[in-house]
Amino acid sequence: MAYVETKPTAGRHFLQIPGPTNVPDRVLRAMDNPTMDHRGPEFGRFGKALLEKARTVFRTASHVVIYPASGTGAWEAALANTLSPGDRVLMCETGWFATLWREMAERLTLRPEFLAGDWRRGADPAQIETRLREDKERAIKAVCVVHNETSTGATSRIDEVRKAIDAAGHPALLLVDTISSLGSIDYRHDEWGVDVTVAGSQKGLMLPPGLSFNAVSAKALKASEDAKLPRSFWDWRAMLAANETGYFPYTPATNLLYGLDAAVDMLAEAGLDNVFARHDRHAEATRRAVRAWGLEIQCEEPRHYSSSLTAVRVPEGHSADALRATILERHNMSLGNGLGPLKDRVFRIGHLGDFGDLQLVGTLGGVEMGLRAAGVPHKPGGVQAAMEYLAGNA
Amino acid sequence: MAYVETKPTAGRHFLQIPGPTNVPDRVLRAMDNPTMDHRGPEFGRFGKALLEKARTVFRTASHVVIYPASGTGAWEAALANTLSPGDRVLMCETGWFATLWREMAERLTLRPEFLAGDWRRGADPAQIETRLREDKERAIKAVCVVHNETSTGATSRIDEVRKAIDAAGHPALLLVDTISSLGSIDYRHDEWGVDVTVAGSQKGLMLPPGLSFNAVSAKALKASEDAKLPRSFWDWRAMLAANETGYFPYTPATNLLYGLDAAVDMLAEAGLDNVFARHDRHAEATRRAVRAWGLEIQCEEPRHYSSSLTAVRVPEGHSADALRATILERHNMSLGNGLGPLKDRVFRIGHLGDFGDLQLVGTLGGVEMGLRAAGVPHKPGGVQAAMEYLAGNA
Amino acid sequence: MAYVETKPTAGRHFLQIPGPTNVPDRVLRAMDNPTMDHRGPEFGRFGKALLEKARTVFRTASHVVIYPASGTGAWEAALANTLSPGDRVLMCETGWFATLWREMAERLTLRPEFLAGDWRRGADPAQIETRLREDKERAIKAVCVVHNETSTGATSRIDEVRKAIDAAGHPALLLVDTISSLGSIDYRHDEWGVDVTVAGSQKGLMLPPGLSFNAVSAKALKASEDAKLPRSFWDWRAMLAANETGYFPYTPATNLLYGLDAAVDMLAEAGLDNVFARHDRHAEATRRAVRAWGLEIQCEEPRHYSSSLTAVRVPEGHSADALRATILERHNMSLGNGLGPLKDRVFRIGHLGDFGDLQLVGTLGGVEMGLRAAGVPHKPGGVQAAMEYLAGNA
Amino acid sequence: MAYVETKPTAGRHFLQIPGPTNVPDRVLRAMDNPTMDHRGPEFGRFGKALLEKARTVFRTASHVVIYPASGTGAWEAALANTLSPGDRVLMCETGWFATLWREMAERLTLRPEFLAGDWRRGADPAQIETRLREDKERAIKAVCVVHNETSTGATSRIDEVRKAIDAAGHPALLLVDTISSLGSIDYRHDEWGVDVTVAGSQKGLMLPPGLSFNAVSAKALKASEDAKLPRSFWDWRAMLAANETGYFPYTPATNLLYGLDAAVDMLAEAGLDNVFARHDRHAEATRRAVRAWGLEIQCEEPRHYSSSLTAVRVPEGHSADALRATILERHNMSLGNGLGPLKDRVFRIGHLGDFGDLQLVGTLGGVEMGLRAAGVPHKPGGVQAAMEYLAGNA
Repeated sequence: MAYVETKPTAGRHFLQIPGPTNVPDRVLRAMDNPTMDHRGPEFGRFGKALLEKARTVFRTASHVVIYPASGTGAWEAALANTLSPGDRVLMCETGWFATLWREMAERLTLRPEFLAGDWRRGADPAQIETRLREDKERAIKAVCVVHNETSTGATSRIDEVRKAIDAAGHPALLLVDTISSLGSIDYRHDEWGVDVTVAGSQKGLMLPPGLSFNAVSAKALKASEDAKLPRSFWDWRAMLAANETGYFPYTPATNLLYGLDAAVDMLAEAGLDNVFARHDRHAEATRRAVRAWGLEIQCEEPRHYSSSLTAVRVPEGHSADALRATILERHNMSLGNGLGPLKDRVFRIGHLGDFGDLQLVGTLGGVEMGLRAAGVPHKPGGVQAAMEYLAGNA
Repeated sequence: MAYVETKPTAGRHFLQIPGPTNVPDRVLRAMDNPTMDHRGPEFGRFGKALLEKARTVFRTASHVVIYPASGTGAWEAALANTLSPGDRVLMCETGWFATLWREMAERLTLRPEFLAGDWRRGADPAQIETRLREDKERAIKAVCVVHNETSTGATSRIDEVRKAIDAAGHPALLLVDTISSLGSIDYRHDEWGVDVTVAGSQKGLMLPPGLSFNAVSAKALKASEDAKLPRSFWDWRAMLAANETGYFPYTPATNLLYGLDAAVDMLAEAGLDNVFARHDRHAEATRRAVRAWGLEIQCEEPRHYSSSLTAVRVPEGHSADALRATILERHNMSLGNGLGPLKDRVFRIGHLGDFGDLQLVGTLGGVEMGLRAAGVPHKPGGVQAAMEYLAGNA
Repeated sequence: MAYVETKPTAGRHFLQIPGPTNVPDRVLRAMDNPTMDHRGPEFGRFGKALLEKARTVFRTASHVVIYPASGTGAWEAALANTLSPGDRVLMCETGWFATLWREMAERLTLRPEFLAGDWRRGADPAQIETRLREDKERAIKAVCVVHNETSTGATSRIDEVRKAIDAAGHPALLLVDTISSLGSIDYRHDEWGVDVTVAGSQKGLMLPPGLSFNAVSAKALKASEDAKLPRSFWDWRAMLAANETGYFPYTPATNLLYGLDAAVDMLAEAGLDNVFARHDRHAEATRRAVRAWGLEIQCEEPRHYSSSLTAVRVPEGHSADALRATILERHNMSLGNGLGPLKDRVFRIGHLGDFGDLQLVGTLGGVEMGLRAAGVPHKPGGVQAAMEYLAGNA
Repeated sequence: MAYVETKPTAGRHFLQIPGPTNVPDRVLRAMDNPTMDHRGPEFGRFGKALLEKARTVFRTASHVVIYPASGTGAWEAALANTLSPGDRVLMCETGWFATLWREMAERLTLRPEFLAGDWRRGADPAQIETRLREDKERAIKAVCVVHNETSTGATSRIDEVRKAIDAAGHPALLLVDTISSLGSIDYRHDEWGVDVTVAGSQKGLMLPPGLSFNAVSAKALKASEDAKLPRSFWDWRAMLAANETGYFPYTPATNLLYGLDAAVDMLAEAGLDNVFARHDRHAEATRRAVRAWGLEIQCEEPRHYSSSLTAVRVPEGHSADALRATILERHNMSLGNGLGPLKDRVFRIGHLGDFGDLQLVGTLGGVEMGLRAAGVPHKPGGVQAAMEYLAGNA
C-alpha cells in the first residue's frame, strides 16, 4: 500500500475506470466511524431511516433490499428470488455484462434466451416486443435488461422496454441492472414499472464496493412467494421482515452503511436532477473530445449514449491496452479496459460519481497526452473541444 | 450518526458484543485509502500477496477464498460448493448459530440431520462417531460443526471431531464455522483435516463486517467438481481461477481488503500464539469475575469454555435484556443478547479482537455496576477477582 | 508509528496523562478534511461562526483569539500583549506550571513576584489581597494565576481571587491559565472578571495539541494599547482586525480549526454544566479509589481538588516512575509523571476530556494492578470503592 | 463543513493557491492516529528519529528546530534568537512577504533596511554586496532574504546571495525564508552557508499548516547566546536541550509530527531531486500556457522563475479577483489572490506539493475556461501548449 513516487507523476491518482469511482472524503470519513452493535437500539433507528431514504435514489416508494455483498450478488438475488429452475428469461445482448448475467442465469439452472446485439447500442424494444408477442404460452418469466452497459457505454431506454412489454401484453417481470447508472443517469423504478432494480455501491453512489441493492416491486414480491430457486443469503423474506424495524437478519456491512447514509444525503443536497445534468454535460464534453481526436465512439446510437462512461475505439492495428498502460505509467490515471471481444480494441473513460469539470479536463488531457505518447493516430484538440463545450455550458 | 453526550456517560463506546469487535485505528486508516482499479497491475500484486498471507491465519497451505460478503454468505458458499440437492449433512446443535446454519441447509434443499445438544457445551465427538458408523451407505456427505458457538460461548474440539470421523472411517467432508474464533482461538485448518473453514471479518480479524472466507482443502475442491447445487456468486471455480494472478472474478470489496491486509500484518507481528494466549487469559479472568458474582456460566463444560466470549445466565425471575439496557444507558457499553431459547436468559460478554487488560477491567466493571443498578442478585467482587488473576498473570 | 503487539496487552492505549487527552473520533474525522483556502469566501464564513461560538466555552461575550500554536504560546501572548519591560507581576506558586510561567515572565524581561506555596493547594486569595494592599504605588500590573495546576491537581478559586483583588481595590489585570481546566471544570471569564484567559486545545477541548487561546476583556484590550513588550506573532491587534471578517492575519492551523468546530459543538450538545458534572463525578470516584488504596492525594485542600486530574503520592522509598513504567509495560496505560520537586514522588491520573465511566474503571484497575506488580504498599479495593460511588451516582 | 453540491461543479476541490497545498491521504491518515504521551518512551524514540530525518529536507547536518506554530512564528523565531533590540538588518523587497517580514522586524524593535525592489524578480546580489561593503562598521547583523517570494513567483538565488556576502567579507548572518520553496525547489542550507532557514509545513511538505521550522547553523547558534531580544516560546536553547533525547520543552503538535514523519518519508522515497524536477517541469508547462494565452508572467527574470507558483497579470481594466471568483464559482478551484499593490492585478497558480500532470492540466483548464467566462482577453490554446510540453517531457 505504500506510496512510492518513483516517476515524474505524483499527486492524486485519477481513477477513471467506470467504477469503482473516486470516493469523496465525506463518505470515507463516515465509513471511518466505529462499528456499532447491529442489534442495539441506535442501529434500529439508523437502519430504519437509511432504508427509507435509500428509496429516493431509486425513485421508488417500494422496498429497497441492501446486501452486504458486491453488485454481482444483487444480480443473483434478483434471479433467485423471483424465478424457478428451468424458467425461461429473456435477456438482451448489450455487451459483456449482459453476457455475464446470462451466464449466471444458466449456472442458476434458468434457461435464458439471448436477444442478439452488436455491442454498439442499448437493448432493442422492438425486438423484445416481437419475442414476447411470439411467446403465446407466457413461458418467459422475466425480461432482463442492463440499463447502462458498462462495457460499451450504451444506455438502454427502460421506458421504451416497459412500453414494449406492455404493448405485447406480456406478464413477464422486468429486471433491470443499474449498477453503473444509478445516481448518475435518470432512472425511475416506479414510473417505469420495473420489478427488480439491481444496483451496487461503487459507481454513482460514490462508495467503495461492498454493498448491493434490489429495489422490489409488489409484483416481484408476489412472484418471490412461488419462486423455487434455492435461496438463503439472498432471500428477500428474512430481509424485509427484519428491515421493518431497521435491522438485518444477519450482520450487515455496518461501516459501508454509514457511507451510504452520507452518500444519499449528498445526492439529496445536490438534487438528483442536477446530478444527472452534470453527468450528461460531462459525457457530451467527452464525446466532443473523442470526435476532435478523430476517434470512434463505441456506442453508435446517439439516443443510447451513456452519461457515466464513454468507450472509445482505437484504430485498427493499435492496442488499447498499450495505450492504457502508457497513460497509467506516465500520467497516473487508470482507464477501463475492453472486455470480451472488445479486449484491446476499446478503452473506457469513466466520468461518473463524485467528479467535476477540472477532473474531466485532467482526464481528457491524460488521454490526449497518452495517445501521443503511445503513437495512436489522432488529431490534437480534444481537450480544447471539451473545454469549449464546458465553458459554454457552465 | 451525530455524537450526542446527553447523560453522565461520555467517552468511547464499549462494544463488547461478541462481534463485530472494536476495529483498531490501523485497520480503519488502511480502509480509508482511495479505492484502486481492481483490474490494474497494482491490484494484482496486492491481491496475490494478500491471498497468500491470509492463509497463515487459517494455518493452511491451501486456498483461501475471500468473498465481498458478510459471514452468512460464507456458510452458504461452503454448502453450495460441495453439495448437491437432497444431500444429507450431519450438523450438531451447539446453539443458535448451528440452528441457523441448519435452516440454511434446508432452504438450500439439503437434508440436514441435527444431533441434539443442550446449548451448554460444544459438539460431542462420540455422538458424531456413532452416527457416522451407522451410516453404512455413506449417505452423509458432510459433517458441519460450529467451532465457537457465539450464542453460548462453547468451543467445540475440532481435533476430536476429526478423530471421530477418522475412527468411523467415514468419507464425509468436515465443514467448520470459525466466524467467532478465527484469529482469537487456536485453529488449524490443515492439521485438523478440515475441508472447508468458514470465517468472517468482523470478529478476531478486527475488521468491520463485509468480508467472509472459505479455506478449502484439496478434497473439498474435488467435491466441488461434482456438486450440483446451483451457484454463481459463491462459486469457487471462477474465484480460484482469477485469484491465481491476484484478481477477482467480480468487483471485490477493495477497501475492506486494505483493512484485511493491515489486520493480518498485526496478527503476524503479535504472533498468533500470543494472540490466542491473550484471549485465553482474558476469558479466564472473565469467568473468575462471573463466579465471584455468584452467577452461572452458560457453558457447563470447562474443556469447551470459549476464549472469545462468555455467556452468563441471569437468575430466574430477572431479565438479561433489562440488565443490558441499563448498562447501555448508564455506562455506554453494548453486550450481546440471548438468542433463541436463551433470549432474556443470558447476556454475552465479548472479549475478543483488539482488546486489552484495561478494556476488560472496564467491561467487567460495567457489568458489575449494571448488576447492582438493575437489581440482579449478585455478590460484588467480580472485578476484583478478575484483576487478581490478571495481575498475577501479566 | 507501527503498531506492534509484542506482549499480552493489546487493544487501545489508555492515555491517562492529564493531557493531551483521548481525541474523539468525531474530532479526528473533522480534522481529516482537506485543507481549504484560508483566504477564500468559505473560510470567512467558517471562521466567523467559529470565533463566535468559541466564546461560549469561556463563558465570555468578549473576544477569543486563536493561535496556531500550542498552549505555552498563549501564556506568552497574555504577557506580551498587556505588559511592558520591567513590569511587576504577581504570580502564585501553585506548582510546576506556575513556576514555568514565572520563568517565562523573567525571560520576557518582566519582574515577577512569586507568592510562595507548598504545591499542595491552589492560590491563596488572602495572600494575594495582602500583597496588593501593600502595593500602594500600584506597581503590580497583573496578577497571574494557574486555574488548575496540572502538576499537583489543585484548582485555585478564581472567583475568590477576583474578590481579593477587588477588596484590595487594586487595578492590576487578572491573567488566568485554564489550560487543563477549560471545558472540564466550571470557569467563567466574564462573571469572574478575568482579563486574559489562557487556554490550549489538547485537554478539555479534546483536540490534539496545536491551538491555543486568549480570551480578552475590554480592560486587557485597552492595556494592550500601551504595552511595550515587542510582539508580532502574538499581537492581538492584527488578529482582532482580521477576525472581524472571519480571517486570520497569517495562515491559521486550518485542520485543527475544523476539529475545534466539532469539539465546541460536542460540548454544546452535551451542555457545559453536564460536562463539568461528569468530571466532578469521575474525580470523586478517583479520590475514593486513592483513599481505599491507603495512598495520599497530593492536594491537601478539599475545596481545591481538581476535577480533571488527581496527583497521587507514593509512599517514601518507592518510585512513582518505576510504577508508571510497570503500568505502561504491563497494561498499556500512560500516566502523568511528577514534575520538578515532585519527580518520582507522585503519579498523576488524568480523568478529563472525552472520558467515560468504564474508561475510568479500566484506568483505576490499571493503577491497582500496577501497584501490586510494582510492589508499592497499598490495600486492594480502590476500584471497588470507585465503582460503588459511580454506581450510586450514575 | 457540509458538502453541498448546488451547481454543475462537483468532485474534489482544486486547491491551487500557492499553499496550503493538497494534503496527500498518507499524511492525513498519519495525522489521524491517537495522540501519544509526549513524555513517554515511545515519543522519545519517535521524536529523535524524526528530528534526525527532518534535516535531510533542508540538506543540513545541523539542528532543525520544529515549532508547534505556523510559518510566521518561525520568521519571528529566526529574528528573536539571533538579534538584539535596535539591531540593523538588511532585507530585500522582493514582494509582499518580504514586506511583512520587514514589518515584523520593526515591531520586534529591530531596524530593518529595505533594499528596494520592483516585485518582478528575486533579490539582487549585487545590491546586497554593495550595501554590505558600505557597512564598514559592520552594523548590519543579518541579511534576510525570501527564497521564493510567494506573492510574485520569483525565486532568489541564495547561492549568489551567499557569494555576495562573502565577496563583501561581511560577517552578517544569512536568514532565509523557504516557506514556499522547501521540498519543492532546490535548496541547500549547508552548502549555501545559510544561518537560519525558516520553513513551514503547509507547502512543499504537504502538511496542513501548524508546524514551522528553523534550521540553525553553528554560527547562528553562537549568535543566539548574545542575542538580547526577549524570547521564551521561540527560544532555541530549551528546544535543543530537550531535542537531544527526542523530546520538546512544551507540548508539541503531536499529530502534525506524525504527518511530518510521513511526508519526509514520501520525499525520501521519491528522491528530493526528482521532486524538484517535477516541480520545474510543471512550472515550465504553466508558463507555456500563460504565454499561449498572451498573458504576462509577473516575474520578469527567467533565472528567477519560481517552480512552486506562477503569478499571472491580467490586462489593464480587468479584475483578477473577479476572474478568481468566476473560477471558484464555476469550476470549484481556488487560486491565489494578488497581495498589496498587486491586489486584483495578478492571480497566482500554485503548482507545488503533492501534484501531478493531470491535476496541472485540470488547473490550467480551469484558468482557461475562467478567462473566457470572465471576459478576460486572451487566446485559447494554453492548455494545449502545456500538454505539448508535458507530453514531450514525461
